[in-house]
Amino acid sequence: MISPKKYARVAKRLPKGFKSVNEFFNCVYHDEEMIWMGQNTNHLHEENDIMYEMLESIKNKDYCKYPPPEGFPELKNLILQDLGLTEGYDILITAGGTESLYLCMNDILEPTDNVITCDPGYLIIDNFASRFADHVKSIPIYNEECGYKLTPELVKENMDKNTKIISLVDPLNPLGSCYTKEEIKEFADIAIDNDLYLLHDITYRDFAREHHLAAKYAPENTITVYSFSKIYGMAGLRVGALIAAPDVVTSVKSIIINDLGTNVIAQKGALAAVKSKPEWLDRIRNTTRGNQKIIKDAVDGIDGLFIPVYPSDGNMLAIDMYELGIEPIDVTEFLLGRKIFAREGAYTSKLFGHRYLRVSFSIPTESVEKFAVDFEDAIKTLKHK
Amino acid sequence: MISPKKYARVAKRLPKGFKSVNEFFNCVYHDEEMIWMGQNTNHLHEENDIMYEMLESIKNKDYCKYPPPEGFPELKNLILQDLGLTEGYDILITAGGTESLYLCMNDILEPTDNVITCDPGYLIIDNFASRFADHVKSIPIYNEECGYKLTPELVKENMDKNTKIISLVDPLNPLGSCYTKEEIKEFADIAIDNDLYLLHDITYRDFAREHHLAAKYAPENTITVYSFSKIYGMAGLRVGALIAAPDVVTSVKSIIINDLGTNVIAQKGALAAVKSKPEWLDRIRNTTRGNQKIIKDAVDGIDGLFIPVYPSDGNMLAIDMYELGIEPIDVTEFLLGRKIFAREGAYTSKLFGHRYLRVSFSIPTESVEKFAVDFEDAIKTLKHK
Repeated sequence: MISPKKYARVAKRLPKGFKSVNEFFNCVYHDEEMIWMGQNTNHLHEENDIMYEMLESIKNKDYCKYPPPEGFPELKNLILQDLGLTEGYDILITAGGTESLYLCMNDILEPTDNVITCDPGYLIIDNFASRFADHVKSIPIYNEECGYKLTPELVKENMDKNTKIISLVDPLNPLGSCYTKEEIKEFADIAIDNDLYLLHDITYRDFAREHHLAAKYAPENTITVYSFSKIYGMAGLRVGALIAAPDVVTSVKSIIINDLGTNVIAQKGALAAVKSKPEWLDRIRNTTRGNQKIIKDAVDGIDGLFIPVYPSDGNMLAIDMYELGIEPIDVTEFLLGRKIFAREGAYTSKLFGHRYLRVSFSIPTESVEKFAVDFEDAIKTLKHK
Repeated sequence: MISPKKYARVAKRLPKGFKSVNEFFNCVYHDEEMIWMGQNTNHLHEENDIMYEMLESIKNKDYCKYPPPEGFPELKNLILQDLGLTEGYDILITAGGTESLYLCMNDILEPTDNVITCDPGYLIIDNFASRFADHVKSIPIYNEECGYKLTPELVKENMDKNTKIISLVDPLNPLGSCYTKEEIKEFADIAIDNDLYLLHDITYRDFAREHHLAAKYAPENTITVYSFSKIYGMAGLRVGALIAAPDVVTSVKSIIINDLGTNVIAQKGALAAVKSKPEWLDRIRNTTRGNQKIIKDAVDGIDGLFIPVYPSDGNMLAIDMYELGIEPIDVTEFLLGRKIFAREGAYTSKLFGHRYLRVSFSIPTESVEKFAVDFEDAIKTLKHK
């Protein structure tokens, strides 16, 4: 077991005591006491059909054979039904939403194109886009005026004739902001009018109080990225999907990487996950909403802190501590010492990372209660330094 | 259950009765009677530590969390130890050898480079190379003179100053040819002298009677691609690795796709697989060698057929039927009707695909015996058409 002191050193952007970020993650991963609030993963599933189907799949030795390269048709259909996108769309199963994001950028972008993202946001999208496009315009959205999200107005101000993709992570990691129907319709119009694509990353959709698919308003101009890592609690299985108009998916297939398909156990689990969702969805939503309130109360109890977006429509939120002059990375460090894994803002923002801590709360409520206590300690301790 | 007639139509490069190749594969995958000789997968593992570890991993809900992005350090070390490449190499765990092949091409190739491969060979390598290089030189090696493999002489004749990668699949899919120590040393010298890379795909290494790692002779100039799909029987789990000099691996990491890591259950299974190899390796090798002999005897019993490379050092071999005027695709079709999945040569050759059928034999011996009978029937039936 790793000592709190060693973890603490690691939080400081590595790694005395560790040879690499990878080794650090390996230690955190294998530390069974660690409270997992640093990756927006979901630890609220109990023994259920997802687990059962995967156990059966292994006993059946399904894993000896390669699965069909584009995914099990049953799974493809279930996901499309889950979204209500049954006619006029095609789908590709991938090794996580991440692979879908990459394939999307690789397929669509030309070297003269640019891509609009937002800051704070999910930085791997910027990274992938920058490999294929001329540049990425990451629009600052960390302010009340725009509601802590990319707005149609901001997009219009910042786009030009070479803008090819507008990336909408919705709800947004790390803030939990989410788009209204009207906003989604406006984005759809922008995409159609300007012959560009909306990359609609709906990883956190099922945590939202209300959610609208851009694909319904701009079916030819939207690529929807779907993930099993969050609401389904299957992050370590690396399974996701890309949904778009058939010609877009056909084009993506021409640059496919995993031509031998996506992990069969993950796909069998995913089948059970979509099928069983009605059985557990409300329980998980209720627990995360209750957990979120515990964090809100703890934050409200401390002057100088605030939560930019509350309630969050994701399973994570940001806590802003700029006014107190506390560095989020010092809080991460402190919390690691208490066996709580959270993430400093720099992980999801280049411009505002010094302002906030991101915590996810799809974990057991008693762990969130422990966080509330330890976080208060952290702020008290660090404020007087 | 799908009818033999429907399968037969499918073999004809699709798909009356099927909407897509993907649907065809899905049907074959889920047909429990199907004898699996079409994908070089390994169906000879019984209940063992690999299965047990994966079951435990699921019961432990390991899959809720993201694994360390570059792979579990214990797995990385075990693979390096398995190869005896413990000092001066680094390793990255990937979603199958396939992803390693892609990352290798993406990282190394510039648009002016060219890549040397061989025909017959593993065509996805040519595909990946062509996405990043100026062109791919696929050298015909289907003749006795060169021993049905790429030789150092052939490479020297065909390379030029822009050649950046020489791809060596060793043993070679689909023929089963394998390199001697002297040949590997010569390739290593070519790579060092000309500042280029050997892509040494050792997917079938453990089936070979003798195998030599290019990495030992050209450590700075070799990228070794490792797979869990064949000897370990874990094809559907999609886990593999890329091993190279530390600076090469560092460079590859900069263009990583799955920044959230490789499926944890696959990695946990892979750990058990490497650890337990001494317990089952000889049994699987002996069975495959016996199976290979059954096929050889069947082929020898029919005038006009021959096996280019015998014994094969892989778990597959090619059966040449050109002299009989029989199209391999007709044999595939016939065999599908008998619930045997094999692959016509076109799957692994642009130039010689019309000459041979590829069959893999890491399946139970009684299935190979059935193949021997049905294959004889196929040839008899098709010869008189």
